[in-house]
Amino acid sequence: MPSSHEEWIRQAIGLAVENVRNARGGPFGAVVVKNNEMIATGVNIVTTTHDPTAHAEIMAIRTAGQKLQSFQLDGCELYTSCEPCPMCLGAIYWARPKAYYFAYTRDSAAQAGFDDAYIDDQLHLKPEERAIPGHCMPVGKSSAPFVEWAQSIGKIQY
Amino acid sequence: MPSSHEEWIRQAIGLAVENVRNARGGPFGAVVVKNNEMIATGVNIVTTTHDPTAHAEIMAIRTAGQKLQSFQLDGCELYTSCEPCPMCLGAIYWARPKAYYFAYTRDSAAQAGFDDAYIDDQLHLKPEERAIPGHCMPVGKSSAPFVEWAQSIGKIQY
Repeated sequence: MPSSHEEWIRQAIGLAVENVRNARGGPFGAVVVKNNEMIATGVNIVTTTHDPTAHAEIMAIRTAGQKLQSFQLDGCELYTSCEPCPMCLGAIYWARPKAYYFAYTRDSAAQAGFDDAYIDDQLHLKPEERAIPGHCMPVGKSSAPFVEWAQSIGKIQY
Repeated sequence: MPSSHEEWIRQAIGLAVENVRNARGGPFGAVVVKNNEMIATGVNIVTTTHDPTAHAEIMAIRTAGQKLQSFQLDGCELYTSCEPCPMCLGAIYWARPKAYYFAYTRDSAAQAGFDDAYIDDQLHLKPEERAIPGHCMPVGKSSAPFVEWAQSIGKIQY
């Protein structure tokens, strides 16, 4: 069993290489670790599962949640072959591991033809100015879902 | 069948309200539409499925991908009750619909106790300065996964 950050990172890289060789998806792999024990792994399976969200980190986080039966990865660390894209970084924040480690940067991903850096740039623009525009459509004064949430008894906050 | 942006947005809001009443998860709902036809819906099921990535938009995008048997939501529009968080916005960019529409803003989500605005602020920091720190760990000069990808014949790009 790996015992250092570098060994776990090498495992994530190994998964990424293997994933391309197996033609399952893009060149990305990730591992979730807790107390130096592997909790879950993930690889990019976007194209083979018709799921644009099936990045390595997302898959590893989802599997770890099932393994731990929790939507919070308390005390976990995420090792990923490449710097997380904005989607995966958001997922890391919602899953709340202790830290994450990556081998290659977004620039490397961009050079290999992936949109990570482009998406990051887009997120800095106002919604309506983005290449995929976001339009706010207020529907009256009501915030019905949030009112319902505030009044809900026994809700599980996250 | 709804025929205007506002009617589709109201459907997304209705799903969000219903989701809280059913105690399935947070107060969020989303609908994917193509040619004024509903392709998929999604609600937030983070807590009940132990999946921190199971936001309404992610669920709607994943289901739409299955329905269309494609990892690209060409020509689709996404209607969501609340402005997408950074994770969901990243997912929108990977799925590449035409546009998205939302009723409530991130500030509303923040007021209701959700981390969207906080995560957005965190993403503007350098990885190592974030509350969940990201550490780059280069492992030698090799970019093995990207080299493998470049050399892969018959790979499906996305």
